[in-house]
Amino acid sequence: MSHNSFGHLFRVTTWGESHGPAIGCVVDGCPPLIPLSEVDIQGFMDKRKPGQSRFTTQRREPDEVKILSGVMVDEDGVQKTTGTPISLMVQNTDQRSKDYSEIKDRYRPGHADYTYIAKYGIRDYRGGGRSSARETAMRVAAGAVARKILPQVTIRAALVQVGPHKINRANWNWAEVDNNPFFCPDAEAAEQWATYLDEVRKSGSSVGAVIEVVAENVPVGLGAPIYGKLDTDLSAALMSINAVKGVEIGNGFEAATLSGEENADEMRMGDDGEPVFLTNNSGGILGGISNGDPIVARFAVKPTSSILTERKSVTRTGEEVDVMTKGRHDPCVGIRAVPVGEAMVACTLADHFLRHRGQVGD
Amino acid sequence: MSHNSFGHLFRVTTWGESHGPAIGCVVDGCPPLIPLSEVDIQGFMDKRKPGQSRFTTQRREPDEVKILSGVMVDEDGVQKTTGTPISLMVQNTDQRSKDYSEIKDRYRPGHADYTYIAKYGIRDYRGGGRSSARETAMRVAAGAVARKILPQVTIRAALVQVGPHKINRANWNWAEVDNNPFFCPDAEAAEQWATYLDEVRKSGSSVGAVIEVVAENVPVGLGAPIYGKLDTDLSAALMSINAVKGVEIGNGFEAATLSGEENADEMRMGDDGEPVFLTNNSGGILGGISNGDPIVARFAVKPTSSILTERKSVTRTGEEVDVMTKGRHDPCVGIRAVPVGEAMVACTLADHFLRHRGQVGD
Amino acid sequence: MSHNSFGHLFRVTTWGESHGPAIGCVVDGCPPLIPLSEVDIQGFMDKRKPGQSRFTTQRREPDEVKILSGVMVDEDGVQKTTGTPISLMVQNTDQRSKDYSEIKDRYRPGHADYTYIAKYGIRDYRGGGRSSARETAMRVAAGAVARKILPQVTIRAALVQVGPHKINRANWNWAEVDNNPFFCPDAEAAEQWATYLDEVRKSGSSVGAVIEVVAENVPVGLGAPIYGKLDTDLSAALMSINAVKGVEIGNGFEAATLSGEENADEMRMGDDGEPVFLTNNSGGILGGISNGDPIVARFAVKPTSSILTERKSVTRTGEEVDVMTKGRHDPCVGIRAVPVGEAMVACTLADHFLRHRGQVGD
Amino acid sequence: MSHNSFGHLFRVTTWGESHGPAIGCVVDGCPPLIPLSEVDIQGFMDKRKPGQSRFTTQRREPDEVKILSGVMVDEDGVQKTTGTPISLMVQNTDQRSKDYSEIKDRYRPGHADYTYIAKYGIRDYRGGGRSSARETAMRVAAGAVARKILPQVTIRAALVQVGPHKINRANWNWAEVDNNPFFCPDAEAAEQWATYLDEVRKSGSSVGAVIEVVAENVPVGLGAPIYGKLDTDLSAALMSINAVKGVEIGNGFEAATLSGEENADEMRMGDDGEPVFLTNNSGGILGGISNGDPIVARFAVKPTSSILTERKSVTRTGEEVDVMTKGRHDPCVGIRAVPVGEAMVACTLADHFLRHRGQVGD
Repeated sequence: MSHNSFGHLFRVTTWGESHGPAIGCVVDGCPPLIPLSEVDIQGFMDKRKPGQSRFTTQRREPDEVKILSGVMVDEDGVQKTTGTPISLMVQNTDQRSKDYSEIKDRYRPGHADYTYIAKYGIRDYRGGGRSSARETAMRVAAGAVARKILPQVTIRAALVQVGPHKINRANWNWAEVDNNPFFCPDAEAAEQWATYLDEVRKSGSSVGAVIEVVAENVPVGLGAPIYGKLDTDLSAALMSINAVKGVEIGNGFEAATLSGEENADEMRMGDDGEPVFLTNNSGGILGGISNGDPIVARFAVKPTSSILTERKSVTRTGEEVDVMTKGRHDPCVGIRAVPVGEAMVACTLADHFLRHRGQVGD
Repeated sequence: MSHNSFGHLFRVTTWGESHGPAIGCVVDGCPPLIPLSEVDIQGFMDKRKPGQSRFTTQRREPDEVKILSGVMVDEDGVQKTTGTPISLMVQNTDQRSKDYSEIKDRYRPGHADYTYIAKYGIRDYRGGGRSSARETAMRVAAGAVARKILPQVTIRAALVQVGPHKINRANWNWAEVDNNPFFCPDAEAAEQWATYLDEVRKSGSSVGAVIEVVAENVPVGLGAPIYGKLDTDLSAALMSINAVKGVEIGNGFEAATLSGEENADEMRMGDDGEPVFLTNNSGGILGGISNGDPIVARFAVKPTSSILTERKSVTRTGEEVDVMTKGRHDPCVGIRAVPVGEAMVACTLADHFLRHRGQVGD
Repeated sequence: MSHNSFGHLFRVTTWGESHGPAIGCVVDGCPPLIPLSEVDIQGFMDKRKPGQSRFTTQRREPDEVKILSGVMVDEDGVQKTTGTPISLMVQNTDQRSKDYSEIKDRYRPGHADYTYIAKYGIRDYRGGGRSSARETAMRVAAGAVARKILPQVTIRAALVQVGPHKINRANWNWAEVDNNPFFCPDAEAAEQWATYLDEVRKSGSSVGAVIEVVAENVPVGLGAPIYGKLDTDLSAALMSINAVKGVEIGNGFEAATLSGEENADEMRMGDDGEPVFLTNNSGGILGGISNGDPIVARFAVKPTSSILTERKSVTRTGEEVDVMTKGRHDPCVGIRAVPVGEAMVACTLADHFLRHRGQVGD
Repeated sequence: MSHNSFGHLFRVTTWGESHGPAIGCVVDGCPPLIPLSEVDIQGFMDKRKPGQSRFTTQRREPDEVKILSGVMVDEDGVQKTTGTPISLMVQNTDQRSKDYSEIKDRYRPGHADYTYIAKYGIRDYRGGGRSSARETAMRVAAGAVARKILPQVTIRAALVQVGPHKINRANWNWAEVDNNPFFCPDAEAAEQWATYLDEVRKSGSSVGAVIEVVAENVPVGLGAPIYGKLDTDLSAALMSINAVKGVEIGNGFEAATLSGEENADEMRMGDDGEPVFLTNNSGGILGGISNGDPIVARFAVKPTSSILTERKSVTRTGEEVDVMTKGRHDPCVGIRAVPVGEAMVACTLADHFLRHRGQVGD
């Protein structure tokens, strides 16, 4: 019942604080004989790492991942997993030395400062400590390993809303996602967002966002009824990312507004003799079990509470104060959540793939 | 990694199918010395049971719960928990004998028929088998036990949207919830819904709904950072209910549209010398840990796929057919999800209360 | 972290007290499409049930098992598992009405009376409550299901020591096990034990015993290194049986006395082109993983503490008293532990078979 | 269901191979505000580290432990736990470069070579890889953290048998344990063992051993009935150590030979008004729950299979060969298992302490 692990047969445990010497994770349960080297992971780390555009925090972290265990070079010269736990580590390098005395005893509104103190009686206030978004770097690393377990599955995510501004879904083009600093699939929206987020950034404010993750070519049969529903585990995986406050599968909250006729996905036989669904309102999951259609999940990220405007708060000793968070910010922390969302979906699917194989064979 | 259990220190395992002899659950980890008898549970069962109005399925089940273990009458004549597992059982009585040959081999659109067969190669097609909403009766029973662990916490839920029709939040009155067959806190909306749902019912159609659960007087400190976030576990608990496709904590997806200034809940000192929050956008959870404010969670239930209109589908052997689901229906299955949502929140809070006590003492 | 469950992918949760209305278990994770009916289970229940000879307790329980969920009759008329949880129940019938006032507040030496009260502040003193050996009936039921998952594996157990009297291993004959009331594989020893145990019984005393479980045709590869060692899980499974105080795998404690040369099992190629082991000191497990040789485990059962001789004790309120346990006794509770040991090994192997299949495929 | 983790509320995950860059562990669930620095851990590491006498392997590892997360220096200048996961790491330094071609494809008798290949299709043959005793270094590190949770409990272990040579229990003196290279509590036996083990060492052979762990001042009430028995979890913890093949609690297998009168520990009232046990056959555990008496556990370690005598074996490709393991050896690997046994008991008790506190309060 570890609070820092997720998954069952494919199980990830993360550790580390923003301002400690390093962060890391242990991936336990990865099958053996899978080719794996640091370069397989680094590409995903690079997508998430900070300081890549003016729209994300200016902290500079190379986020260079090291594999410390769980692999060996096989006779054919290829480094492969051995079935033992894979330990991954990233050194923290840009822990800017700073005077934290100002926030040490002040509860920043919207942050976990108050609740950490209330629960633990102590908190690492340096850079957010354990609640820093830095922890998500290791989710991305684990997700890169998870993808190796399901090589035929394509898992991609995109930013579909920034503050009140949604994309036009008619413009959706996966190829655009890498052409702008927002992972936005709509080139037009990306341009508008740039203008909008520049304003937000300059005013020292922040905004929320919505991310959509799509997994294609998922085998039929992953997930289980009741408490092992694939929707349940995806929902937990995405809700566990910092700042996430809502999750939807398929048409999600929209489903509440529809009739049974509109919502139920009809079926016909496909050209290959397999059943096909004519629509995908279910987001690829029926009764908790994948149906072969793309898995579609969306999650909402709240605006980061680190802003340059003073907000009312109190101190640990009960004084009323006004708090402003100086230093480096993410005007839209949702941007960097895009590769994190992909990673969490990858880990969930890898876990369910192994569970499915265990319980009902191949 | 049991697919039919949830919780850790307070752990519930449910079993049973719609058309088997009985359904039941085992509640493991309930602390000892808590007064508990069937009457404590039955009231909640009665709120969920079918056939109470024309707006829910006409199946008649008394849903009389029996306690089979885990309690004994103490010297003072009061029946109390002993710390051993509590087994609860409900006989199935109204398994209407029926010819299932029509749906046995047909995949009803929107149902789990196809995925169960694809995964397991067998499915209990009688009344939905394990995927029937009957399973949720045992969640309600377990939730009644969970409430006993946190007697000071008030957990209530209400239906806040039926199809496209939302309540007017200005009219919210908890007292109204028991005055209409919808658990609707807005008397005006309830009247409109009655008319609307009568139409839906008569046309053999169905609609979705949104339920809001509110837990008041939750102790500060429940939950944990990262994968044990209280939001994460609430989200998993609610998403595990059949037909749920979306979950929000606090302002949820709305948070994506706000600025950091608008969204972060400011703090001041209360009259009792404890910090108070001036707003509750966070839904009572900061950094995954309860902050003392009401916990607010919402979930979306899709329209049941059992409708009287023919929909395109296929059979197990690959023939294209049109399928219509005859028999008893819930025009809005979301209504009966209201007590189920309460129960899942109760179980989650009870579990986190025990986990919190274990890890950081009282 | 349920205290009343064991296993992971094949997970068993038991419930019930000696003097409640019933006892039962939920078997979660059984693969689908396995033929299963009550008769498959009842035979094993009958081996364990009390009152079958003068050497076990005279409580009369038919121990008739009912399957309440998780199966359905398939088109070919055979009842099969569906992959959903299997609920098994046995009614308690012979809860002899009795005056418990004498032991209610007295701690019987060697029993869990004192520790239950110290931990829980309450205990069901009627017939041992949850700590009664009746709980093991449901382990046997679950074990019968587990055997179905590994039909090629033969799991048998025998009593190899009663008090100080060991069998002569040269006389080992599995066929003898069913020819005497002790599950003794040595006909000569069985005769001596009968005389010896008659004396023990008549004097109102009790003795301990050692049971050996052997599993043949176990696939190579079950288990895992480190904390998932097959030895670890077998050891936990057997140690969880009431009154068990020691467990050995292979030559066990004997291994401590040997040299590396003597202990390491040498290998040669078998006629079928597969490696064979020339000895089996390891008990069929190397590095935590099954090696294809018979799995051999032994466990020691202490003498039941229910005896007719007065022993020094204290009451709940701190008075010093002498306690004698009247009523029905097992002079050698180890006898009935034989089928229980088999069941625990069956459950452990079934779980590891599914885990192995999940993690490294077939 | 991670194979590389143990514990629930106090949960340890280890990683690393003998010849990788490092080994480490993550301790998740340690309560906050506990003073903890590397020096608290290093003393225990030093007891276990190799190369300290001629009786253990000559590999030279400083085993210097680093804390990478989960602590911070509090306002009073003391480094304390924060409640977040504690990552501990030890660099591997003495991975002697060596030609492994000889054993790469040969299955060393008694080792896990064959089963690793059979299960995973790949194994890290360098220095034993994951199955090396090096993994136990991290158990010792985790155990040092666990001890901090129960500071009043004294956990000590001693070697009580080497090969066929047992100590004389009348000579037991804890003070002697640190006076000889065997952790032997009997000064006379230690002298004899020195002579005996010199012979074993010189002949390139090895012997097994038995270790006894004693935990004093354990609170009453740790553990739970049935599958959470303290005996069960201790047994699993000890059996998970490499080369362990047997575990006993209290008088263990000896209990099988006793009568109920002899075995049940009688009770009287102590001078402090609390019940006391007149004997401790139970090893401090009744019905799976600690009774306040010293917890006593013993485990048997088989002789290491790395010996200088040729033994019959086969290669991966099916050739029959004779195998001898050259290089550094532990003539009695049981010696270094003494601090490991202590650590496993410490972790188990810490976990059960937190579980107990969670389920029944303080």
